[in-house]
Amino acid sequence: MPTAISVVTLLTDFGDRDYFVASMKGVILGINPQARIVDLTHQVPPQQVEEAAYLLKASYKYFPDGTVHVAVVDPGVGTTRRPLLITTSRYFFVAPDNGILSYIYEEELSVEVRQIENRQYRLDSPGTTFDGRDLFAPAAAWLTRGQAPGSYGRLIRDYVRLKIPQPEWEDKVLAGLVVYVDRFGNLISNITPLQLQEAQRVIRKSSSDVSVRIGGVTIDGLVPSYSHGSGETPGALINSNGQLEVFVRNGSAAKLLKARRGDRIEVL
Amino acid sequence: MPTAISVVTLLTDFGDRDYFVASMKGVILGINPQARIVDLTHQVPPQQVEEAAYLLKASYKYFPDGTVHVAVVDPGVGTTRRPLLITTSRYFFVAPDNGILSYIYEEELSVEVRQIENRQYRLDSPGTTFDGRDLFAPAAAWLTRGQAPGSYGRLIRDYVRLKIPQPEWEDKVLAGLVVYVDRFGNLISNITPLQLQEAQRVIRKSSSDVSVRIGGVTIDGLVPSYSHGSGETPGALINSNGQLEVFVRNGSAAKLLKARRGDRIEVL
Amino acid sequence: MPTAISVVTLLTDFGDRDYFVASMKGVILGINPQARIVDLTHQVPPQQVEEAAYLLKASYKYFPDGTVHVAVVDPGVGTTRRPLLITTSRYFFVAPDNGILSYIYEEELSVEVRQIENRQYRLDSPGTTFDGRDLFAPAAAWLTRGQAPGSYGRLIRDYVRLKIPQPEWEDKVLAGLVVYVDRFGNLISNITPLQLQEAQRVIRKSSSDVSVRIGGVTIDGLVPSYSHGSGETPGALINSNGQLEVFVRNGSAAKLLKARRGDRIEVL
Repeated sequence: MPTAISVVTLLTDFGDRDYFVASMKGVILGINPQARIVDLTHQVPPQQVEEAAYLLKASYKYFPDGTVHVAVVDPGVGTTRRPLLITTSRYFFVAPDNGILSYIYEEELSVEVRQIENRQYRLDSPGTTFDGRDLFAPAAAWLTRGQAPGSYGRLIRDYVRLKIPQPEWEDKVLAGLVVYVDRFGNLISNITPLQLQEAQRVIRKSSSDVSVRIGGVTIDGLVPSYSHGSGETPGALINSNGQLEVFVRNGSAAKLLKARRGDRIEVL
Repeated sequence: MPTAISVVTLLTDFGDRDYFVASMKGVILGINPQARIVDLTHQVPPQQVEEAAYLLKASYKYFPDGTVHVAVVDPGVGTTRRPLLITTSRYFFVAPDNGILSYIYEEELSVEVRQIENRQYRLDSPGTTFDGRDLFAPAAAWLTRGQAPGSYGRLIRDYVRLKIPQPEWEDKVLAGLVVYVDRFGNLISNITPLQLQEAQRVIRKSSSDVSVRIGGVTIDGLVPSYSHGSGETPGALINSNGQLEVFVRNGSAAKLLKARRGDRIEVL
Repeated sequence: MPTAISVVTLLTDFGDRDYFVASMKGVILGINPQARIVDLTHQVPPQQVEEAAYLLKASYKYFPDGTVHVAVVDPGVGTTRRPLLITTSRYFFVAPDNGILSYIYEEELSVEVRQIENRQYRLDSPGTTFDGRDLFAPAAAWLTRGQAPGSYGRLIRDYVRLKIPQPEWEDKVLAGLVVYVDRFGNLISNITPLQLQEAQRVIRKSSSDVSVRIGGVTIDGLVPSYSHGSGETPGALINSNGQLEVFVRNGSAAKLLKARRGDRIEVL
């Protein structure tokens, strides 16, 4: 169980133009004025749980031990979908039970999942539309005050897990997916360096010889950095999160290739 | 009078791509490095004082006692419009005298309004275009350092109050307005649960029987949460801020109904 | 050399919808949980080093002594372009060596520029695409922990400086440039009050008589504040950063004049 220090991250689809995020922060600071609140992002497209799950996966490990990660993309707000408190060896997670924590369940060795039942950690509210403020924010803030996870509710096992797509071999082609498209239009795949090494053995090529195919375009070889791209044709590399990524130097691979999340990407 | 702890919220129309907001934060931290600064939002459309007033109303109460709320949507910057310091039983507010605090005057029982006259709390500046940085930020920061409100300037009574629209009875129809449209396209009205109960008595219907009409569409009955909507037709509920709200499940009521702020919304 | 207190500002082109900025913050808080992180902005258009340089110039001086300013607009990430640590009498700056700190070199009297060579301040990473997280964030965080600049690497002199455009006299016309267009469409020039005074002497006019020409439109005289504009025609004033600025009251000068960064602006 992590020691209770007081970083709280917030990941939502609330955007930055309404009163939603500020209200959550007010509630947290009201319970623990020492909490250090960090916006993970609030620009998840409305109700896109999978996108939020990826963003959490891509960043949560960089926070200090004891951080409370709050993830509220919550199409089921106000229903009986369960609010969860997850404890791992390093972190806490507070989120609705809709699969938004799927990568955490996969990547963390020791995971305790609790249903938040204790109504003491909940604000009274005239409605059911804003559990981010009324339920998840106070639940997180009380954790930073040292409240024991066991006081929140019972352990459960039947929590929702999204199917996380894994690259698959089809003959001598390793077929993966674009799992994220970033601001720069970089196409991030679910193919890891380890899988790429395997691909090199299977295909009997060196790393620089292997080809990447996406959207009808074949990219010959991987390069070590963005600067090795031509600016006109896409390049491929292993990015700093350990994923195969297709890019255009100082441009947008997504635009050039008309590619998006879910598209097939192949190593051959 | 609130005790001086050190949360400062910032509400502006400065956006997030310029140097404006960061300059304000730098000034505040220069005066009080312990201040905890929270962005309320900076995405108020340029010069939209009414929109800012609503955003403040919707969130200010969730902050801890002693918070200094700074609101700078200020079409009159550089003119003789007065800078104000407002003290309530729980909070401070620092803002131009243009009505941006109208809801505060309405909702708070004990309100002291001062004109900020003391030039000690002001930065020297080569121009008059950025009172957010040169006047309001330092005024707020010195409050968190414990400066007495009385040292800022004299009490005034003739401050600007916007007319806050109230729902009105027209025969057996309660007519309100859309006062805010959020990121999700939810249409938030100025009709409260209390007014809705009154409507039920007057119209002699139960809560679920009452109808809501907006943009030529009639919604039969209220539902308890977003998830009760069909996804194709709009629904109505009481939201967590205690206001009647029209929504489309996982969609945008504003788009579907071509509705916007100021539109009429009826209970019948 | 500044004393080590713990404000860190972040200026990037990473936007606000990905995991980039949050990852940097996580790394910083992991090294120094007491660091106070302020977003300068993350909305620099991708790879626009000059725009970032201006935003830093416009705001860095408003932060308290000892602030570490981190600027990561970095088209050369992953190449041999050098990471830099700059020490001035008041601040630290951490940035790639691509000219993003050009205004700092110009405005600060005492500047020590070091190449960051010490790999102790660097995170291990599977790729080369995210030095913001893996190199610049930890370098900044260790400064706030009191690490001596000398421990980062050797002093260098051949760092990259962008040419900063200066207004020039052409006969009796002072010709400057639009160096920044802000959210409101205000056109900020590189002409200072001092240069304007000189122009008044040369042209033998008083301040209010001098004319400003941009995009085929001539503005007669300067006004003291935005509120003196007509709302239909552009006005000119000295803004609070000490730069000649063309504006439209409650409107956008950039739209009205179809003007943008780099456009010529004349005083005559």
